[in-house]
Amino acid sequence: MPVETERKYLVASMDWRAEVTRSSRLRQGYLSTDLDRIVRVRLVDDETAFLTIKGRRRGDSRPEFEYQIPAEDAVQMLDHLCQRPLIEKERYFLDRSPGVWTVDVFSGDNDGLLLAEVEFDTGATPPTPPGWAGTDVTEDDRYTNSSLQESPFRSW
Amino acid sequence: MPVETERKYLVASMDWRAEVTRSSRLRQGYLSTDLDRIVRVRLVDDETAFLTIKGRRRGDSRPEFEYQIPAEDAVQMLDHLCQRPLIEKERYFLDRSPGVWTVDVFSGDNDGLLLAEVEFDTGATPPTPPGWAGTDVTEDDRYTNSSLQESPFRSW
Repeated sequence: MPVETERKYLVASMDWRAEVTRSSRLRQGYLSTDLDRIVRVRLVDDETAFLTIKGRRRGDSRPEFEYQIPAEDAVQMLDHLCQRPLIEKERYFLDRSPGVWTVDVFSGDNDGLLLAEVEFDTGATPPTPPGWAGTDVTEDDRYTNSSLQESPFRSW
Repeated sequence: MPVETERKYLVASMDWRAEVTRSSRLRQGYLSTDLDRIVRVRLVDDETAFLTIKGRRRGDSRPEFEYQIPAEDAVQMLDHLCQRPLIEKERYFLDRSPGVWTVDVFSGDNDGLLLAEVEFDTGATPPTPPGWAGTDVTEDDRYTNSSLQESPFRSW
């Protein structure tokens, strides 16, 4: 089964900004927030869209299936079918290796929340977190985007 | 928004068998059974697969988005991610018009249930049901496949 492996950290300082190479605006919603079978609709920069199915997390890995779909379908699903509220965030890609490092800056109901993530090969040793990374929240399900949709950061 | 329009009937006699042109074995499961945002994985004859999202029904129509996915992905989602039990049925296609007529013969936990469906153009007059069709159950949500998964026919 295809698997996504990542670790997730709070952000302790803004020093990550010096490492940014590019960013994308993500608008996403959920058709299921059941942690055994998450179904996410994601629109990237208003022009590319994906439907993603995620199974339950075991440690830092979870099954993941992702399909590109027409952006206009995603807009309609986000506007009419997905649970409220939607998740909106800017994703910054960093010049850092090993692994693929990003920082998500949330807006809307999750305004004020920043999360760093590193995706890496399943079975590999997790990359050492940078100095600006804070608490490791990989196994804290409150920080999954599906949970943030149900219980937004600003309501904590 | 793409829309599916259909009416659904119980089956009052087996006379539909004379109209069968072909059949397919369907194995399907649900990632969401929320009637506002159903997410279905369907495997057809163990070789073709679809991921389908359906919005809330209004009368005989509902929004529907459907994407073909690799059969091996569907097998893994059915085996590991979908809610239990799965729905298994044989779908018989009929030589009858107007509309596209099918009869589903359920097995497993829904053994004993037969449902006839006709899909037709949105806004058109529903085709006249044949003599072998029984009660119109279009607006009885117990007969949606997502409900039959949660509350199978044999448990009624």
